[in-house]
Amino acid sequence: MLALRLIERKRDGGHIEPGEWRALAYAYAAGHVPDYQMASFLMACFLRGLDRSETHALTDAMLHSGDSLDLAYLNRPRIDKHSTGGVGDKVSLVLAPLIASLGVAVPMMSGRGLGHTGGTLDKLESIPGFDTRMPLLEARRLIETLNCALFGQTEEIAPADRKMYALRDATGTVESIPLIAASIMSKKLAEGLTGLVLDVKRGSGAFLPQLERGLELAKTMIELGADHNCPVVALVTAMDRPLGRACGNALEMEESIHALKGEGPADLMEVTYALGSEMLLLAGAARTGAEALQMMEQAIADGSAARHFQRIIEAQGGNPSVVDDPAILPQANEVEIFVAPRRGFISRVEPRAIGRGITALGGGRTKMDDKLDLSVGFVITARPGDWVEAGEPLATVFARDRAGIDSGRATLRTAIAIADEANPPLALVSHRVSAAGVEVLAAG
Amino acid sequence: MLALRLIERKRDGGHIEPGEWRALAYAYAAGHVPDYQMASFLMACFLRGLDRSETHALTDAMLHSGDSLDLAYLNRPRIDKHSTGGVGDKVSLVLAPLIASLGVAVPMMSGRGLGHTGGTLDKLESIPGFDTRMPLLEARRLIETLNCALFGQTEEIAPADRKMYALRDATGTVESIPLIAASIMSKKLAEGLTGLVLDVKRGSGAFLPQLERGLELAKTMIELGADHNCPVVALVTAMDRPLGRACGNALEMEESIHALKGEGPADLMEVTYALGSEMLLLAGAARTGAEALQMMEQAIADGSAARHFQRIIEAQGGNPSVVDDPAILPQANEVEIFVAPRRGFISRVEPRAIGRGITALGGGRTKMDDKLDLSVGFVITARPGDWVEAGEPLATVFARDRAGIDSGRATLRTAIAIADEANPPLALVSHRVSAAGVEVLAAG
Repeated sequence: MLALRLIERKRDGGHIEPGEWRALAYAYAAGHVPDYQMASFLMACFLRGLDRSETHALTDAMLHSGDSLDLAYLNRPRIDKHSTGGVGDKVSLVLAPLIASLGVAVPMMSGRGLGHTGGTLDKLESIPGFDTRMPLLEARRLIETLNCALFGQTEEIAPADRKMYALRDATGTVESIPLIAASIMSKKLAEGLTGLVLDVKRGSGAFLPQLERGLELAKTMIELGADHNCPVVALVTAMDRPLGRACGNALEMEESIHALKGEGPADLMEVTYALGSEMLLLAGAARTGAEALQMMEQAIADGSAARHFQRIIEAQGGNPSVVDDPAILPQANEVEIFVAPRRGFISRVEPRAIGRGITALGGGRTKMDDKLDLSVGFVITARPGDWVEAGEPLATVFARDRAGIDSGRATLRTAIAIADEANPPLALVSHRVSAAGVEVLAAG
Repeated sequence: MLALRLIERKRDGGHIEPGEWRALAYAYAAGHVPDYQMASFLMACFLRGLDRSETHALTDAMLHSGDSLDLAYLNRPRIDKHSTGGVGDKVSLVLAPLIASLGVAVPMMSGRGLGHTGGTLDKLESIPGFDTRMPLLEARRLIETLNCALFGQTEEIAPADRKMYALRDATGTVESIPLIAASIMSKKLAEGLTGLVLDVKRGSGAFLPQLERGLELAKTMIELGADHNCPVVALVTAMDRPLGRACGNALEMEESIHALKGEGPADLMEVTYALGSEMLLLAGAARTGAEALQMMEQAIADGSAARHFQRIIEAQGGNPSVVDDPAILPQANEVEIFVAPRRGFISRVEPRAIGRGITALGGGRTKMDDKLDLSVGFVITARPGDWVEAGEPLATVFARDRAGIDSGRATLRTAIAIADEANPPLALVSHRVSAAGVEVLAAG
């Protein structure tokens, strides 16, 4: 009866009170509200929207449906980074050990890949032995000793959100700003953060391609953070092409290790440093962006970031020698170079096509219980705006077998466009959003 | 995947094609689309609306998800009446035998009571032995021989609608004009009609209390009928007070028998004759309203309507002597007169309160599997606008026990209001809606 009353109220544009959100989230998590009622309610939320107090109350309700990482006793800043997801986006793999090595706690609860975007947990698990499943107590111990734990959302964290997210995925109610914001923030607040940096992707490969929608999400998350004593800063970054060169789980792990050793591609480093600066500033570990950048470059140059990653890998059951010898990562059986079919400017490297291509190779999921081949993917050296001659190598396909190579070649033919005129890509880091408002960092 | 695509399209205000409605209805009826996806889709339909071609396609899809009564071979007009539902609305019980006795086939598939409104099937089942469950073939045989079958929606009829209606009831998606219209018409078209008369209730006890919404429903049903070669005419009638005097299953059956024998209350007869005239005109059995009225009055005066009801009762397993001796209907254990607590004008007899009061007595349902006590209810002789003295009898409570009498008394105290000034009730039959448009029959 409660659920039906709330469905009808939200359907008619009415307001749901904090106690009602709490009762609904608890009842749903406990199985007292059937999926079909929650589905109807979520569609009403999608179409009618949630106001700020409702979004706040839903976040709280989902957060308190489960446990939290209580880390206040650490007396250390605790900062996480969240990305809205993209292709080739391995920033977390570089940033978590790098920032943790600088004395800031990074309790990084991540997800798995679904659809065209990859997931941090899958990439980490390409390291032999690496275990991302742990109870909250173990995550706490790791954060205490190493400033970092790289783990998945446990059953204990925001169970109402877990169940609701799976339902939204099946009922066409994912792309709602308040529902997305509440879902992310309920999990992030469960990490016991003192600050959060948000990487809002825009462009054709982003979850919310339009800038306006990305800014709206950032604004909503910033408000939620302010309501919960967790300041949030967001950067808008480009996802009209993959980030870095490697796309695929083990391939991205390898590129991240290179990045931690000072050999990362320029675009990956630019985004990593931009987000890392915000983390260090939120933590109070640096006073200016220039100081933050200098700290990070130093940690990479002197090897302390890479060494810190080794310690984290070891603590999570992985083989730490991967940092010195990435060749112990899973290797694809078949490898083939893809060359330019004609001369011209690279006008487009379409992230969605690449992401779907990884899934076609067996390295991505269309549903949550798909098993992955972590070795497969693409390394794409061609960048939008490059001039190329016919026959020039643009990318490499990594596949399980010859059929995979054929599939990968077909993917690259669709994903990489060559034209007579250059088509300028989006600015890599274009906007900064904080409680003070939106700052344009770069045009385009 | 189909369902998710259609959810997203409807959510975003897009159009669903006829083949897609068909595929969705079939897949849902067959259990291939889960309830939670259908619930989300229905809420999107509720909030985004359906255009005429979509409403038509949904009606067709639900109609063709099951069997139909194929009656074309009869070469007789086949007309049914449908009411949007009210309290004390026993018109079908009078109209079906009356019109059938005049040579028009009335294949009347009816429903059960739910919420504050009663159901024709429950009322019929108060006749000892009367069986409303029959396969379509049996209904066809009865219509062939007696022009009438009084039966419930079988598993064979519009199974997609059956399942969808139950889901809508639980997910806050009932009060949508296109969904209501498609649901009613899919069942009515399955009766193989050549015409349909619609009784659209308005006022506080109506399913859609506002006149505008009732007219919109009528217009939608008329369009659907036109699209399916089944002309529809609608009358708007008052449901700001119960219709007739008896409210409760056996009590309404008894009043209907009296009505068929020429002793019905004036308001019940006025609505019955108004709807019956439209049926006879649609059937081509009368050329004018005056002629139709004369035919009906004659059939009641000469006893042929009552005798026809006896034959129908007998054919459906009931005890036909009920027509001569209504005392064989279930009788309540306890009966008490309710008197006016003060002098004044009867300013209100609230149908929803009466309907809920019947449920409280055990004579109505809050969920479909509730068992009913068919003997209980109210007979309300006081009409809005009447002047009454303190202590004057206004109504009678029929209950199972003394606790029921107390509950019934409390119901009447709430439902019947007495004031110093008369409060004019709605006009009994106020509007006629046909393909030609809306005609105002009476002001107020």
